[in-house]
Amino acid sequence: MDEFEIISRYFATATSPRPDVVIGIGDDAAVLETRAGHQLVVTTDMLAEGIHFPTATEPDAVGHKALAVNLSDLAAMGAEPAWATLSIALPAVDPDWLEGFVDGFARLALEHGVALIGGDTVRGPLTISVQLIGWVPRGRALRRDGARVGDDIFVSGALGDAALALVAADKRMDIAASDVDHVRRALDRPTPRVREGIALRELASAAIDISDGLTADLGHILTASGAGATVSLPRVPVSEVYARARDAGLGWGPAVCGGDDYELCFTAAPERSAGVHAAMRVLGTPVTRVGTIEGAPGLRIVDSEGKRVDFDAAGYDHFRRSRR
Amino acid sequence: MDEFEIISRYFATATSPRPDVVIGIGDDAAVLETRAGHQLVVTTDMLAEGIHFPTATEPDAVGHKALAVNLSDLAAMGAEPAWATLSIALPAVDPDWLEGFVDGFARLALEHGVALIGGDTVRGPLTISVQLIGWVPRGRALRRDGARVGDDIFVSGALGDAALALVAADKRMDIAASDVDHVRRALDRPTPRVREGIALRELASAAIDISDGLTADLGHILTASGAGATVSLPRVPVSEVYARARDAGLGWGPAVCGGDDYELCFTAAPERSAGVHAAMRVLGTPVTRVGTIEGAPGLRIVDSEGKRVDFDAAGYDHFRRSRR
Repeated sequence: MDEFEIISRYFATATSPRPDVVIGIGDDAAVLETRAGHQLVVTTDMLAEGIHFPTATEPDAVGHKALAVNLSDLAAMGAEPAWATLSIALPAVDPDWLEGFVDGFARLALEHGVALIGGDTVRGPLTISVQLIGWVPRGRALRRDGARVGDDIFVSGALGDAALALVAADKRMDIAASDVDHVRRALDRPTPRVREGIALRELASAAIDISDGLTADLGHILTASGAGATVSLPRVPVSEVYARARDAGLGWGPAVCGGDDYELCFTAAPERSAGVHAAMRVLGTPVTRVGTIEGAPGLRIVDSEGKRVDFDAAGYDHFRRSRR
Repeated sequence: MDEFEIISRYFATATSPRPDVVIGIGDDAAVLETRAGHQLVVTTDMLAEGIHFPTATEPDAVGHKALAVNLSDLAAMGAEPAWATLSIALPAVDPDWLEGFVDGFARLALEHGVALIGGDTVRGPLTISVQLIGWVPRGRALRRDGARVGDDIFVSGALGDAALALVAADKRMDIAASDVDHVRRALDRPTPRVREGIALRELASAAIDISDGLTADLGHILTASGAGATVSLPRVPVSEVYARARDAGLGWGPAVCGGDDYELCFTAAPERSAGVHAAMRVLGTPVTRVGTIEGAPGLRIVDSEGKRVDFDAAGYDHFRRSRR
């Protein structure tokens, strides 16, 4: 099978029909219609085997995650996704692997109305690069630099399950098989909070997605906004599975500093709080107020008695640590 | 040095100032203004070390080429480039290599007014993924499927020098040192024909860039247009360096089937011929009519006496052959 057959056989199916795609896959470049009154939002993420996903990861989970991490970036901007490109380096042509990968990618693309408009297939160590383009009404993008003193800090969903999956995979802790399934699903098939991000456009003052850990990503909001914050550790939302592991000795570390959750962390003025809760309730998405933006620089994490708890605030850094 | 310092130190400089960049590098995604009356044109290419460039390639040549191959795709659509994203997997942080890479990328970006709006840096075997977005006036994109029977077939510049560079590097042929410099430059630092593509919008009926070889890429135009063609071998434009190697035994193969030239192959109605030559003269770009679009399917390459000459028409295929 040659490169062109791979592309046409597998990737041409991984797409949603969109009337704004004038020329899709098959020419030197795609041609796309624009949208009046809107701005383009563009993001890209690269995933390498053994770093962003364990080597034994199911191919459809890899396909899902490659798109999900990009959808999560658009969610953090309050943008509506539209078109993706997908480049992949493959060590060899493995039809079963490709079929699984494309299934995972296509299912999520269809769910969010994303059209695959182009890509590239080369021979090399498994590396995947996705770029995603979407739309936001002019001037309405959620930014990192909008947090103001007194704003509430919120987190969607629950944190730490993806990091716990890596702990379990490394056999650093024994957890029940059904709990492994739960956390492995969080790691392999994260749910990008696209509809939540769109709903937050009129409510949040700043937003980011939690890919490198709450401390690191909230830290980016604080730096960009020139502010500080206090986060209450007991308020950090975790799953029942995580709570069991926490109480069995895991502690709060993976929930506070672990990456790969792809939940949203955002800030909002206190008068928007009711609106935030109402919007998330409509979407069926848990949301938790974890802290407050303050004037004093730095991120303070405190326990139930208000005492400082120290965590490594660096989050995940590809060039410092290797995750597996 | 951590991932964020790498990105801010090296990549934030690789950009042209553009007023249509509302948010560039530094948030979850870039936010960009659109252009009335225009369509977006989007392309992406991935380059892997040892496949798309020899392992010993100068870092600034790698940076140049990573952007050049994408600019070449937009040129083939008649589009004006605007914004790029750059994702790179690096085996380690080598400041000298990164500085060289960014220099090569940034110089070409500045030349074409391209802003770097985002990217990703991960640890892994050297793999580079660039995505490029540009503009074309609505409905004016050059496509592959517009060739009509009777159209002239043109090629810009000269073909085969990049392929000859690989022949010389493999020591399959002895050529003079100054000739090696010339062909190595063609391989490492191709000139994307961006201004030529824009000038051809009103003149050409179909266009493609020659990345996989004339036979393969013209073949894509023929397939998309439902047509055939005859190309006259003695008309295929080559450099003086190539001509010397050809006469010393290299033959026509690399010029006709070799890849990596990044010249444009395009078709135009005979009444546009004077316009094509005038436009290319203004730009100082050689252009050569090499053949004619015909109704009978297939690509026929003929010698000066009109006799068929057979070449492997497959061009370069990453999964069939390894180039080095």
